Amino acid sequence: MQSKRISLKEAAARLAKMDNVVILCHKNPDGDTMGSGHAICRALRNMGKNARVACADPLPRKMAYMAAGMEELSFIEEHVISIDVADAVLLGSLKEVYEGRIELAFDHHATHRDFADEACVISEYASACEIAFDLLEELGAPLTKEIADCLYTGIATDTGCFKYAAVTPLTHRKIAALMEAGADHVGICKVMFDTKSLACFKLESEALSALEMHFGGTLALINVTREMMKLGGVTDEDLDSITAIPRKIEGVLCGITVKEKEGEYKVSLRTEAPVDAAKICSMFGGGGHIRAAGCSFSESPESFMPRLLAACGEELKRAGVVVD
Amino acid sequence: MQSKRISLKEAAARLAKMDNVVILCHKNPDGDTMGSGHAICRALRNMGKNARVACADPLPRKMAYMAAGMEELSFIEEHVISIDVADAVLLGSLKEVYEGRIELAFDHHATHRDFADEACVISEYASACEIAFDLLEELGAPLTKEIADCLYTGIATDTGCFKYAAVTPLTHRKIAALMEAGADHVGICKVMFDTKSLACFKLESEALSALEMHFGGTLALINVTREMMKLGGVTDEDLDSITAIPRKIEGVLCGITVKEKEGEYKVSLRTEAPVDAAKICSMFGGGGHIRAAGCSFSESPESFMPRLLAACGEELKRAGVVVD
Repeated sequence: MQSKRISLKEAAARLAKMDNVVILCHKNPDGDTMGSGHAICRALRNMGKNARVACADPLPRKMAYMAAGMEELSFIEEHVISIDVADAVLLGSLKEVYEGRIELAFDHHATHRDFADEACVISEYASACEIAFDLLEELGAPLTKEIADCLYTGIATDTGCFKYAAVTPLTHRKIAALMEAGADHVGICKVMFDTKSLACFKLESEALSALEMHFGGTLALINVTREMMKLGGVTDEDLDSITAIPRKIEGVLCGITVKEKEGEYKVSLRTEAPVDAAKICSMFGGGGHIRAAGCSFSESPESFMPRLLAACGEELKRAGVVVD
Repeated sequence: MQSKRISLKEAAARLAKMDNVVILCHKNPDGDTMGSGHAICRALRNMGKNARVACADPLPRKMAYMAAGMEELSFIEEHVISIDVADAVLLGSLKEVYEGRIELAFDHHATHRDFADEACVISEYASACEIAFDLLEELGAPLTKEIADCLYTGIATDTGCFKYAAVTPLTHRKIAALMEAGADHVGICKVMFDTKSLACFKLESEALSALEMHFGGTLALINVTREMMKLGGVTDEDLDSITAIPRKIEGVLCGITVKEKEGEYKVSLRTEAPVDAAKICSMFGGGGHIRAAGCSFSESPESFMPRLLAACGEELKRAGVVVD
């Protein structure tokens, strides 16, 4: 299906007329979908409307503050909107429940796949919370401290603490306004960026102790073994966070992480300019972006890894990083 | 000695009249002293003046971009100012050379100890680069891309990437202006926050593998052994960075790091509210701040550590975190 693309002004006008609203967030929720969802929900309630946030998975414990003090309202759902959901599949178990009834989707993903009647997509924004910020302004909804905390969280987490390329001067100006509205930037940053489970620290420690360096320190390789994956308390998110480590090592232009999963091996490649990760992975039936790509293999690592490393070596040579 | 405290406006007026200026930065230079020093130097040069940055230690390699394209100028030094230097002692080897000749000190440390004829101290600012930003505006000096890179670096690094309590809405508005002036936030953040030496990663891995947890996971202890300190390539800065780790573990309210150094042991304590780090350390002849304190001991760890842990346990009980 195709959604009618509408402007933020039009979308705000639609929302202003709605009551008894369900706001859908994506599954495996992050700070951005939950932050924008709760901010819009709180704003609608402050306007005297019935609204609730719905997600296939529960609100992560560390984001409990987003919903603090919000009552469970029971009302007959009249309108359904979504925020930060790039594809109906990402609604998870809620897809079945709501598909076909979603009137309005707010999203910032350039890859948004239409599923709602109308969609307000602003792909220049680094986060859905930046859209929610504009929306609340357009609705004339005051930025309460609680709303400011929600929006701060989403903007900060979806930009890697303001480090990503999609951050703009406007992003920082919105953050300034959210701080003026009382956002607890210290507390939020502590929870979202500076707290890790003991299991995650232990996993990182194990992974680093098994680190291999190749091609004069320009390639780093981490093998996440079955034993590491079985460390008590390690989550999928912790495992994913490992893939960012090799490229953070000074001098590394090609970072590889290999994980054994259900009888096959998953390879994640992260590169720095001018090394092309997608090109390397496409040689092994994988793909992705120029700086982040992946592939998988089911043969033995003893036979596969030398071929992968050779391909990386060729690309490092082509890029002028490694000399024959 | 006592400096005459002057406003930023007055300080800018002084600087506008100076030529052949030396700008002193503190020893062991960080992004803030180097960023503000180079920004002011570049602005003065753009105004047709002679200026140079002076520091007891060289510009760190990762900050080389701050000085890129700046010629070595030779001129007879007429005026001496300092930026981000909280105490003359922090000039290092330049103290002897310049002490008594420093006309104007710019600083953001509330603990600033006067050493210049006049001082412009704005302790509400999270970074010296925020003072430099105001100064350049007052001087009417355009924000070139190079100056914006310098100022962005200092503000970002002195605020832990905008996470610290001293960050204000004004901080973010200045960052917005610096991005508009062309600051390369992605490149700067990559170098300053997301690049670590292999040695530092290895040190962290070793330190974590020796982690001890106490009091139901509310206290984490890292012993930095002599072997860890001897890992090739480990710098003092890397060793210091270890002290931040224990407190980052989920559930930890008291993080301890112990390092053996020249026949004695140095203890660093980092706590979360309501645990008082200074109180614990003061019981062992040390001191510091409420959330970050230290002490040292020369007896054997076998005899000292149980006493330290007992004191921490008492404080955790007092704080209501640990129950008898």
